[in-house]
Amino acid sequence: MMKKLEAPGIADVRLNDGILAPRRKTALTSTIPSAIRKAEESGRINAFDLEGYKGLREYFYDSDTAKILEGIAYALKLEKNDELQKTFETWVDKIVGCQQPDGYLNSYISGAAPQDRWKYLNRIHELYCAGHLIEAAVAGKDLPGGDKLFKAMCRYADYIDSVFGLDEGKRRGWPGHEEIELALIKLYRATGNERYLKLASYFINDRGTEPNVFPTDEWQYEVMRGIRQADKPVREQQTAQGHAVRAVYLYSGMADTAYETGDTELLAHCEKIFASIVNERMYITGGIGSTFHYEAFTKAYDLSNGALMYAESCAAMGLVQLSRRLFNLTGKTEYLDVLETALYNGVLSGVSLAGNTYFYSNYLEVDENSSFYNYGAPERQPWFSCPCCPTSFSRFLPQLGTFIYSMSADELHVNIPAANKAELKVGNQSVKIEITGNYPYDGNIGIIINSDAEFTLKLRIPSWCRNHSIKVNGEKCDSALIKRQWKAGDKVEMVLDMPVEVMLAHSKITCNLGKAALKRGPIVYALEEIDQQFPVRELLIESEQDFELGTVEGLPEGTVAIRGTAYREKMPDTGLYYTGFPEYEETVFCAVPYALWQNRGKTNMCVWNRYL
Amino acid sequence: MMKKLEAPGIADVRLNDGILAPRRKTALTSTIPSAIRKAEESGRINAFDLEGYKGLREYFYDSDTAKILEGIAYALKLEKNDELQKTFETWVDKIVGCQQPDGYLNSYISGAAPQDRWKYLNRIHELYCAGHLIEAAVAGKDLPGGDKLFKAMCRYADYIDSVFGLDEGKRRGWPGHEEIELALIKLYRATGNERYLKLASYFINDRGTEPNVFPTDEWQYEVMRGIRQADKPVREQQTAQGHAVRAVYLYSGMADTAYETGDTELLAHCEKIFASIVNERMYITGGIGSTFHYEAFTKAYDLSNGALMYAESCAAMGLVQLSRRLFNLTGKTEYLDVLETALYNGVLSGVSLAGNTYFYSNYLEVDENSSFYNYGAPERQPWFSCPCCPTSFSRFLPQLGTFIYSMSADELHVNIPAANKAELKVGNQSVKIEITGNYPYDGNIGIIINSDAEFTLKLRIPSWCRNHSIKVNGEKCDSALIKRQWKAGDKVEMVLDMPVEVMLAHSKITCNLGKAALKRGPIVYALEEIDQQFPVRELLIESEQDFELGTVEGLPEGTVAIRGTAYREKMPDTGLYYTGFPEYEETVFCAVPYALWQNRGKTNMCVWNRYL
Repeated sequence: MMKKLEAPGIADVRLNDGILAPRRKTALTSTIPSAIRKAEESGRINAFDLEGYKGLREYFYDSDTAKILEGIAYALKLEKNDELQKTFETWVDKIVGCQQPDGYLNSYISGAAPQDRWKYLNRIHELYCAGHLIEAAVAGKDLPGGDKLFKAMCRYADYIDSVFGLDEGKRRGWPGHEEIELALIKLYRATGNERYLKLASYFINDRGTEPNVFPTDEWQYEVMRGIRQADKPVREQQTAQGHAVRAVYLYSGMADTAYETGDTELLAHCEKIFASIVNERMYITGGIGSTFHYEAFTKAYDLSNGALMYAESCAAMGLVQLSRRLFNLTGKTEYLDVLETALYNGVLSGVSLAGNTYFYSNYLEVDENSSFYNYGAPERQPWFSCPCCPTSFSRFLPQLGTFIYSMSADELHVNIPAANKAELKVGNQSVKIEITGNYPYDGNIGIIINSDAEFTLKLRIPSWCRNHSIKVNGEKCDSALIKRQWKAGDKVEMVLDMPVEVMLAHSKITCNLGKAALKRGPIVYALEEIDQQFPVRELLIESEQDFELGTVEGLPEGTVAIRGTAYREKMPDTGLYYTGFPEYEETVFCAVPYALWQNRGKTNMCVWNRYL
Repeated sequence: MMKKLEAPGIADVRLNDGILAPRRKTALTSTIPSAIRKAEESGRINAFDLEGYKGLREYFYDSDTAKILEGIAYALKLEKNDELQKTFETWVDKIVGCQQPDGYLNSYISGAAPQDRWKYLNRIHELYCAGHLIEAAVAGKDLPGGDKLFKAMCRYADYIDSVFGLDEGKRRGWPGHEEIELALIKLYRATGNERYLKLASYFINDRGTEPNVFPTDEWQYEVMRGIRQADKPVREQQTAQGHAVRAVYLYSGMADTAYETGDTELLAHCEKIFASIVNERMYITGGIGSTFHYEAFTKAYDLSNGALMYAESCAAMGLVQLSRRLFNLTGKTEYLDVLETALYNGVLSGVSLAGNTYFYSNYLEVDENSSFYNYGAPERQPWFSCPCCPTSFSRFLPQLGTFIYSMSADELHVNIPAANKAELKVGNQSVKIEITGNYPYDGNIGIIINSDAEFTLKLRIPSWCRNHSIKVNGEKCDSALIKRQWKAGDKVEMVLDMPVEVMLAHSKITCNLGKAALKRGPIVYALEEIDQQFPVRELLIESEQDFELGTVEGLPEGTVAIRGTAYREKMPDTGLYYTGFPEYEETVFCAVPYALWQNRGKTNMCVWNRYL
């Protein structure tokens, strides 16, 4: 049987913690405004004018606009902002003005290649862009001007449904880049119109079946089908494969469809594929996609730390969303472990503390002597020719509060105990709750229930935590499930032990042999050269020692650094290859949270360091 | 002042050693015959029929044909072979039949896109193909039927000279893929016609000057100019850059032009660029090109061992040829050290002992859990969609004997003392010489002069050799330069100490930190999993020990393997990441010459292993 947990509304959780709250704030003050500017400067908005616009068009333009618009909608729900509201309405007008009489809407096709409508589903992102526009429309439905976009998107979805499917008079077709599936489920939830659920199910279930609809005249078409998760039916795919972002969007669509249709087989298969990510294909940071060849998954244990790796920011955000979906469907906290790991490490590393520069790919090791592939730049960039990551942050960061809790009719799950104040629906009860403390830098967590209500409070004990204790109103409690009639003012105290852990990697991850990563709680640490006395590459960490926790200059107040003994390997300054052995001297090291690296200028960095 | 040493003729050196002689033999029995078959099956020969041929054409087809034809010419000089002679003549007829009335000759352009002649010099390989055809023509000039091709190529070169240059009525233009430059010098040497030398000088000296002739409407055109060594004049380029094969062909053209024109500035610059390869950009095997992005050089110390690396077989062969050119121009034995390293390791690894399968890229570490890029295959392949490496071996391997010696009017240099019998021109004297022994598996070398002649015998003391001794007719000799009136039967004995060396890499090559490679003489060793009791990735080599030399099953007789103590790192079979430390147990390892790896089936392999 499936659980059906729900997430809080976008404005239900007011974050007060030292990590997520500031990120959500800069999303509103920096990430979204700068993305708006970039979208407008690059012609993405004027492109909707069709013949009135003569600049460059790309087949992914509408998705960027839609993702920023979705972010604007969330921002407006979090905080009133007249200028942003005006942008919202202007953009909506532009978008809706581009809609064709039959409901079709795509600025690239209508503006540059009307004859190609639905012709190159494998590589032109029409259905992908449609999906993002639908998500934006659902997000902004209740805002002034939002109804206009919402109705237009319903018309578009109706039109798409009239084109694709197995029924008489329709044609088969699948998006080359998945996204429409999960968007249609959102539209179904917002309208109750089963047509959209049915269409989502069609896209999920027809995908990869024979005869395959993707063309055979494409270069390496068999490889490309795998990259697009379309080489076989989804229920026959055994491991995560292909383009990582597309993959997690598809699996999200599968989870959502399972949620709405009760298709337990589909859910079980989705969980199986997810396990292939977590057990074999995921960086310690929650990053996914080991190669920039098609930004894809490769094979089990292929997880190099630089050069070839990808770990795209968008993929990490997608993994967080997929993990939440699977947790809300199953109640299994292992999904929250992944969510938390990806969120605090692989996602937040993708955006600067200032909120306006980005990593496309998130390396775990950067040395000035190695080649980089963050679109050629070792540093975060303000924009990319394909700016999927910046625009993903625009819509992701405003949602940060929603990951904290999940609710059912009689349960309130604390997924991530970061400090916040919230007002949540638990069944038909409205529950005010507050979390205090400095999680995840500190394991001492206070939870105050500020309403009278009856429900089970479910505290998550993270998989990384070996010892914990819970008290309710000062009394020790043995269970993390606390069912009671809560009174306003009830207080729960939870202590999660979080010593510094020396993590090693599976022996089949060859690049990590002889190396260790430091982790504390959910936070993965990295050595930045700026904090060391010697080049990072020359340091070996003493693995058995009492590590010291402390502050570090130049990073946000409250950031916990790890310090300890290291050994510096001194090698002769010779040619490329030489005989003779290095010398070692004792020194110290300082590690900082990986997600915060390179916020103090360009520097070398390494997550997996050699150890002694 | 430049030296002007010369290489022996193709048939002047009869190899008798255990490594090069068998490779040269399989070139004639296997490499060339299989390449001929592939070229014919793939339509490369029939493509010269122009309208009579309807199959696939590629803009690099003629270069493959030309390279095989060059190999055929060398093979025919080494050994009479009626069938091969017939192929030579048939192919020559086909090629010459494709020549246009004005002298132009290209099966792709004439057959598929005549309107594009000289239009896309940046990416369509017309001048590159012309260069290889000229090389083939020079190689086959004296064979029956060869004159026909030679004359046709002179006509083609004349025509090219009428098109390109700075003179009135000509246009500026550079090849996107260099090769024509060195080919024109060969043609100049074969004809004495200064026109070809002048044209070669034009291509060298105009390259990269402003206004740049390469188009600006190409994607990332500025990057692409660098990839093609055309972003600035060659005399302003400070380090090796761009596509590695193109680079070493260009530098070869520079060296040849310097040789013929006495341009010492050009030579000095060529040496400077070469130094940037050897000191900063070369694998321990002599492989070059650290990334498969454009098969290119990257930056100093960026030398990863798998995944992203390239070390293309063609580039290693190009480096050997370039090294010889620079040695013959300077007499500096450091160039022979590079030649020898690349030859015995990075070149020979590219072709199987059977001579008919190839690596395009030569990894230094292969594990079944990592991604590969030998055109997607971890094993040597019989052919590639772009078969530049197989066709390069067809023309390279027959030349193996010519690397052994260099001569001037009064000097005879023993570059590589592999066993052979030779008859060489030293000035106007004909010198018979014989080398005995089992070099490079053994350092005891015998040199017998079988002619009465006066010259200086120059023995090379390799840079890897720390102790050596020389005797002439049993008497100790302090110098490696032995000037005397030689009598037939004079015997020189040379002993080069070659203990097993534990090599470490420069600390800026981060992937090799904590790792060592074993080397003995010029031979780099690798651990193949097939020879170990545990996975290669789990082994740490004991670095201070008396290594044992011995034989190994399944590799050619005389192959020397290295054995010794290692430690096996035993790690728990957990998920991807865990806490806890590995255990170690003592075991043994066996290392074999890197160039011979994967001649006994698919297996994991590692050159740079961890050490204790």
